[in-house]
Amino acid sequence: MTTDSDVLGATEKEIMHATHRALVNSGYAELSISLIADELDKARSTIYHHYESKDDLLIRFLRFTVDRFEATINTSIGDHPREDLNHIITTLLPCQLTEEKRQLHSVLVTLSPQALDQEVFREQFTEIDIRLTAIIEKTVRRGIEADVFRDVDPTHVAEHILAMIKGTMYSRLTTNREAATGTVKTALFSYIDSHLIS
Amino acid sequence: MTTDSDVLGATEKEIMHATHRALVNSGYAELSISLIADELDKARSTIYHHYESKDDLLIRFLRFTVDRFEATINTSIGDHPREDLNHIITTLLPCQLTEEKRQLHSVLVTLSPQALDQEVFREQFTEIDIRLTAIIEKTVRRGIEADVFRDVDPTHVAEHILAMIKGTMYSRLTTNREAATGTVKTALFSYIDSHLIS
Repeated sequence: MTTDSDVLGATEKEIMHATHRALVNSGYAELSISLIADELDKARSTIYHHYESKDDLLIRFLRFTVDRFEATINTSIGDHPREDLNHIITTLLPCQLTEEKRQLHSVLVTLSPQALDQEVFREQFTEIDIRLTAIIEKTVRRGIEADVFRDVDPTHVAEHILAMIKGTMYSRLTTNREAATGTVKTALFSYIDSHLIS
Repeated sequence: MTTDSDVLGATEKEIMHATHRALVNSGYAELSISLIADELDKARSTIYHHYESKDDLLIRFLRFTVDRFEATINTSIGDHPREDLNHIITTLLPCQLTEEKRQLHSVLVTLSPQALDQEVFREQFTEIDIRLTAIIEKTVRRGIEADVFRDVDPTHVAEHILAMIKGTMYSRLTTNREAATGTVKTALFSYIDSHLIS
């Protein structure tokens, strides 16, 4: 599959990687075009040549990140639908949130209010959900074909899992209920066991 | 149960109701202390006497709203745990999002980035989740006692349901995937049927 990142120019790819480094090193609150330019070791004008604003760049960065996530998942997905499904869930909801993942998820939370009333942000959030659902759905479908999973509705299961993952992702970053993430993951795996496993 | 709203002074209660009207009539983007003062038919200083800033007021408003939601649920909850659970879910995830609910949910989405790094917002988001989980958990527990539900773990079930509700609430407001809300609700009711019903 050709992901969107493949069609990025060399400079844009560099900008994306520099944004990632700036985000991990300095955090979202500190993130600025200047900081990204420093990581890039180029002038700010290089970035403004490609992106109108920080928000514009971050939207593109979200897409770049989902592309990379998709590529990683597609590489690591094998012929074991059950393990593959666990892998997808654990990648999106790791037990320990590394600083890198915390910053990436923070971008989602930070940009979500913009998606309330700006179509360009809504489209990006829509695209992310469509692609995450597709990855989960494909894995469930493979499991059904391989007779590892029961003959469930793959779309329903995918939406069920994605809703739980997204709810937990937001709660994890915006509340002090540390134990809840573990509880939801246990509940999610137990749902998969009882609902999908023959 | 004494909810927090009971201890609000008369003026504060009026400010909360005025905020609600301003939010529904004008939407979050337009919301300002001036607009709330207009709804209240009092000077802005009356509001600033009680709340330092718009964010401070909105945090209090979130709490007021959860209090009211809790009171409504507690009034309408009867001796039918299964119907009560459906009622809670439908109240949080109505089929048609009225303009009133859209504005209330938008406040949650809009304030969530503040909860990333400000403890006062995190506490409020934590409190909301604790109270919503408690309502769901209590209903599940009643269902188990009444032999309507199987002997499941009420905490796990409550966290499972809340994660799905929150994920869907965020997705509904920030994406264009209208059909997904219906699919998740169907999946959620089917989970309750297969996991909880004896």
